[in-house]
Amino acid sequence: MSEARGHGHDHGDPAAMRGVEEHAAAVAALIADTGTEVVPLAAARGRVLAADLTSPVALPPFDNSAMDGYAVRAADVATTPVTLPVAEDVPAGRVDGPPLEAGTAHRIMTGAPVPDGADAVVQVEWTDGGPPGATVSIERGVEPGQSVRRAGDDVTAGQVVLRAGTVLGAAQIGLAAAVGAPELTVHRRPRVLVLSTGSELVAPGEPLRHGQIHESNGPMLAAAVEDAGGEARLLRFVPDDVEEFRTALDAALAEPTDLLITSGGVSAGAYEVVKDAFTSRGVDFTKVAMQPGMPQGAGTYDGRVAVVTLPGNPVSSLVSFEVFVRPALRRAAGHPHPDRARVRARVAEDLRSPAGRRQFRRGRLDAVAGTVAPVGGAGSHLLAALAQADCLLVVGEDVTEVAAGSEVEVWLLES
Amino acid sequence: MSEARGHGHDHGDPAAMRGVEEHAAAVAALIADTGTEVVPLAAARGRVLAADLTSPVALPPFDNSAMDGYAVRAADVATTPVTLPVAEDVPAGRVDGPPLEAGTAHRIMTGAPVPDGADAVVQVEWTDGGPPGATVSIERGVEPGQSVRRAGDDVTAGQVVLRAGTVLGAAQIGLAAAVGAPELTVHRRPRVLVLSTGSELVAPGEPLRHGQIHESNGPMLAAAVEDAGGEARLLRFVPDDVEEFRTALDAALAEPTDLLITSGGVSAGAYEVVKDAFTSRGVDFTKVAMQPGMPQGAGTYDGRVAVVTLPGNPVSSLVSFEVFVRPALRRAAGHPHPDRARVRARVAEDLRSPAGRRQFRRGRLDAVAGTVAPVGGAGSHLLAALAQADCLLVVGEDVTEVAAGSEVEVWLLES
Repeated sequence: MSEARGHGHDHGDPAAMRGVEEHAAAVAALIADTGTEVVPLAAARGRVLAADLTSPVALPPFDNSAMDGYAVRAADVATTPVTLPVAEDVPAGRVDGPPLEAGTAHRIMTGAPVPDGADAVVQVEWTDGGPPGATVSIERGVEPGQSVRRAGDDVTAGQVVLRAGTVLGAAQIGLAAAVGAPELTVHRRPRVLVLSTGSELVAPGEPLRHGQIHESNGPMLAAAVEDAGGEARLLRFVPDDVEEFRTALDAALAEPTDLLITSGGVSAGAYEVVKDAFTSRGVDFTKVAMQPGMPQGAGTYDGRVAVVTLPGNPVSSLVSFEVFVRPALRRAAGHPHPDRARVRARVAEDLRSPAGRRQFRRGRLDAVAGTVAPVGGAGSHLLAALAQADCLLVVGEDVTEVAAGSEVEVWLLES
Repeated sequence: MSEARGHGHDHGDPAAMRGVEEHAAAVAALIADTGTEVVPLAAARGRVLAADLTSPVALPPFDNSAMDGYAVRAADVATTPVTLPVAEDVPAGRVDGPPLEAGTAHRIMTGAPVPDGADAVVQVEWTDGGPPGATVSIERGVEPGQSVRRAGDDVTAGQVVLRAGTVLGAAQIGLAAAVGAPELTVHRRPRVLVLSTGSELVAPGEPLRHGQIHESNGPMLAAAVEDAGGEARLLRFVPDDVEEFRTALDAALAEPTDLLITSGGVSAGAYEVVKDAFTSRGVDFTKVAMQPGMPQGAGTYDGRVAVVTLPGNPVSSLVSFEVFVRPALRRAAGHPHPDRARVRARVAEDLRSPAGRRQFRRGRLDAVAGTVAPVGGAGSHLLAALAQADCLLVVGEDVTEVAAGSEVEVWLLES
């Protein structure tokens, strides 16, 4: 019996199957570190920093005022009220930095450099607001250092401000800009070619004849690749003839590709185009001890490109992607947390699971109650339920029955 | 005393200030529903569905085989072993649908239509695999319906499969494709123009003179807008002269804009370009009872465009964005959960907070321990600490001291 005949079948001898971790390791080993590239800040959101970012400057770069007010020597305002001549006006951005003479004040704005000779700022609310060239009357004294932000208070020159492996969000991009980095070295996004095969497939928007279904795995897997931080290219409706399939694939591989993902096409008999095209060309087809998603394949096609073949059923396909491909893609792209967040929750109803196979059920988590409800049963064709799910429930290989109220592992899909 | 002088100041009379909720409501009221647009599936990831999606077809559209095997009448295999002639080969995608004669079998592949006259499928492993034109020997019987996926088992024709307000991920895009939708009606992304002002600002990558700093709010807020689901356009280094500022702004507003965000430029004296340009033109400047982020502004400039003015300090600016702008943008874009996820956690150290003002501290959450540690102190210029934070801690207006171990509200920034 051909392994390919396992496609879509909920049977098989678990002892003869590959374990989930073993296949996950095989997939992870296929997808190399993608290397790095330099991107401008405007393109850095969501990317993973590939090298520590060291600040060449201190932040703030100079002592500056935390207030709108008057730069003074604290000693000059030790006794109040006191009136001082306002010698200069120091807006933010004034670069000529006139020093403060003893017994005078400079009017100063928030963020402006505190002049040499001054050691504190009196906020404008404690004064009469006198303008430059006249005098200011000060009602309250200040301690040395008051309302002054010290150079280096936030960051010192030479400090590593962002570590390699940091995921870049708004705050990290803001910090990079503040230390003067116009661009950042990040991990390159994995380039993934998504292939969908199957003579029963019709494009969404086209009418169906009896026996046909709309092609859904392509757009679904492309979205999953992008969610995982990859760049997806979609090649749909590749021919079912093996030689035509290889020709179409060769043309698509003219563009740089880090990983090829197929779904379907590993069925039995004369119709297993993916299997026929890749067998003995570097791709191993195997059964993995899981439900759904038993028929899997992985390898390097003709020494040219990493290939992962997923089952054709949409639910099997996306669950397999979650288990094998997503963590591998994220690890290759340097992501510090390649796996989905995992929690434990009490299951809301009894579950059954096949012996010797790890079951991944779709569920909805009530995080407040700490409970998880399966949605849509175990069937691998129940796409509507998958679209309602916000998590996967994991039932171990050695478990065949889970009583309502028992704890199970839950993978959070929305995170 | 001008309200603008509140910029960067940690003082002011809380009783005279606007409450956080009141200002949040004012900002939310500025930003209208963005309307809808139709996008192809390939561009739908992360978007919010704007109308219920009803399936015109059943899923599966026809009874189909869950196995590779033989379509039979269960009654014909009630006694086994039995040998049946194999009359037809039914691969997935075969559309001519020849019916099954009593006492015969059709070889059938997973996903292929179950022929009229057949009521079950015998999986290939229970047979000798006989080919079409010959006979198949069947070792085990099947119940009626066995290994058949019924039409409509997943989705019935006319069923709403995705509700308006659904955030579109891989599974939802797969389901939309499966029901034949080549494109989806989604909420349009808010178009946001981000302005940064300040004569002290220098582009990242350029050298600093004493008194200058690198411009960081623009790229930071643009990334925050994109994170919130908006489209950001960045207009940097607008002139400090009010008329030139208005001219530059008018040019930028030639492109459709749903919201203008400024940061800085609301300081005192001759240097408050944002305040001067917008005062009496529809934008109200106010103090909000919070720390950081007291000086805020909101309104509609010349009846033309919604404006939110944020403070210039990076931390104040991003915290204000989180509190006021992000939820408003997400609500305008139809997002079902406009606010950040909020949890409660025990704070790891004593905190102080000003009376009458809501304090937002940056923190790191230990979700397993249920504790949160503040990072970087209360200072609004501490960008490095902000970049280390994964949450905001919220201390209420009526609280001035929080003892270590007390529970505080926490907003999760990475979700």
